[in-house]
Amino acid sequence: MNITTLAGGVGAARFLEGLIQIVPQEDITVISNTGDDEDFFGLRVSPDIDIVIYTLAGAINTETGWGLAGETFRALEALGRFGYETWFGLGDGDLATHVHRTNMLHNGATLSQATRSIVEAFGLRLTLLPVSDDRIRTIVETVAGETLAFQEYFVKRRTEDEVRDVRFDGIETAQPAPGVLEAIANADIIAIAPSNPVVSIGPLLAVTGVREALRTTRAKVVGVSPIIGGKTIKGPADRMMASLGMTPTAVGVAEAYRDFLDVLVIDEEDRALAPAIEATGIRPVVTQTIMRGPAEKRALAETVLAAVR
Amino acid sequence: MNITTLAGGVGAARFLEGLIQIVPQEDITVISNTGDDEDFFGLRVSPDIDIVIYTLAGAINTETGWGLAGETFRALEALGRFGYETWFGLGDGDLATHVHRTNMLHNGATLSQATRSIVEAFGLRLTLLPVSDDRIRTIVETVAGETLAFQEYFVKRRTEDEVRDVRFDGIETAQPAPGVLEAIANADIIAIAPSNPVVSIGPLLAVTGVREALRTTRAKVVGVSPIIGGKTIKGPADRMMASLGMTPTAVGVAEAYRDFLDVLVIDEEDRALAPAIEATGIRPVVTQTIMRGPAEKRALAETVLAAVR
Repeated sequence: MNITTLAGGVGAARFLEGLIQIVPQEDITVISNTGDDEDFFGLRVSPDIDIVIYTLAGAINTETGWGLAGETFRALEALGRFGYETWFGLGDGDLATHVHRTNMLHNGATLSQATRSIVEAFGLRLTLLPVSDDRIRTIVETVAGETLAFQEYFVKRRTEDEVRDVRFDGIETAQPAPGVLEAIANADIIAIAPSNPVVSIGPLLAVTGVREALRTTRAKVVGVSPIIGGKTIKGPADRMMASLGMTPTAVGVAEAYRDFLDVLVIDEEDRALAPAIEATGIRPVVTQTIMRGPAEKRALAETVLAAVR
Repeated sequence: MNITTLAGGVGAARFLEGLIQIVPQEDITVISNTGDDEDFFGLRVSPDIDIVIYTLAGAINTETGWGLAGETFRALEALGRFGYETWFGLGDGDLATHVHRTNMLHNGATLSQATRSIVEAFGLRLTLLPVSDDRIRTIVETVAGETLAFQEYFVKRRTEDEVRDVRFDGIETAQPAPGVLEAIANADIIAIAPSNPVVSIGPLLAVTGVREALRTTRAKVVGVSPIIGGKTIKGPADRMMASLGMTPTAVGVAEAYRDFLDVLVIDEEDRALAPAIEATGIRPVVTQTIMRGPAEKRALAETVLAAVR
């Protein structure tokens, strides 16, 4: 059984931690968001890809949800000496990943190839595809009239700006990475991870051909709502959805995916929203979606698969 | 009084530590060897330039003579995960320097510009010029028939191979960096640091126009022999000179520089070589040249300047 997951960062990584407990990694393809990618000091950083890899390899800093466990920050401190901004917390071990990725890209490799190399170095056996090998940059326009690169909005300014609009620079010409459309077309199940529908899953859906592939795949498509009781566990998805005129609840998630989603898994807290979701033509499945430990991650993955089997 | 120093790595850095005690940094220009430069993991490393900067900034690891004091090696260890060789000991703080240099080079800066940025970041006020902004690569051919990049010979294989020949790839087309020929032509004193005549000073002399500028400058040219009693304090200069058919003593140093050198400062241990040096047309000055502490570094610099004032 082939399972393809559309993934952002922390929420997706936690969902995948459950999935790999019950499905062989060889049967899993993850399509990762690259709109968050940023260059720091000339090094290409792919936060969502790395969060998934580090998490599934058991190397993640579990307190922050990003970066490697037990990190030091000596290189970052030293980079400050040269006038660089150092608000993006790149640890010394993490930096090695970015040095390697950048080296491969400079030597002509694609992001897909660099990603595969990192996946293998961390001992993983799943397939992890960046949604595109072409550069996509998520840009946030604020109500105050500023234009911020995603990491500037997300990390430097801690999502405190009110968002007026979001766009994905480069999206018109970005082609799906090799294997992306095939992984959607040929999957048995497609899972949309509990990630931000706007800035994590949004860029994936905006790449040429991806949304159409989701609409036409023979696979069942099941999503997990990242919004519980009108709030996200982490990140700005609720506020961002509201700012953009979307309903900042699981219903809004259903609406965002209504043209391709078969099932939406929502939290018990949102049981009352089930009829509204059903009204969008999507079947709601109610369960415990907050993943505190390995057992809850596994249970959520089981529920997701059972919902479409 | 303008003083220009032709410099390799550790020996030159120690000599310059003495010089900056008695001459304002603003009056000093250092022309650095770049034949040792190497790319590791796609990062450009300029060992001789960095040794001089770190030493003069008081940041050097004084036990090794290279790298930063108090270093950790987390990034290097992590790079091993991706299959890179990790025999070149790049610390986490040091790595920041190479990330910055590489970033500037990728953005179109010259090595001269990147070097100036690093010099300034370390709070130095002297002028440090790479001998060329073009790539020069010192290649060692061994008696066993192998061809080794310099760092492979020097660090990985600890200078254990017997050397048959040394060449500088790229030297035919390498142009002197901006300011190099001027710093030689317009200096009052030119000091050839106690560096390896073959692989540290050799590449400088081989760059188009440099040797001719040394021959025709109005400055007095004074060298310090890195060979004492037929041995080097550090490094393979003695063995290398012997392998290449040079006399592996201070006399051989004099012979290597005879077409432009006015004075050669030699160690008291080599007092008996003074007549042989005089016979090459170079005036020998005998002093204590082993630099154990700040006072001895200063004393050597004073002797060098006094010899040509």
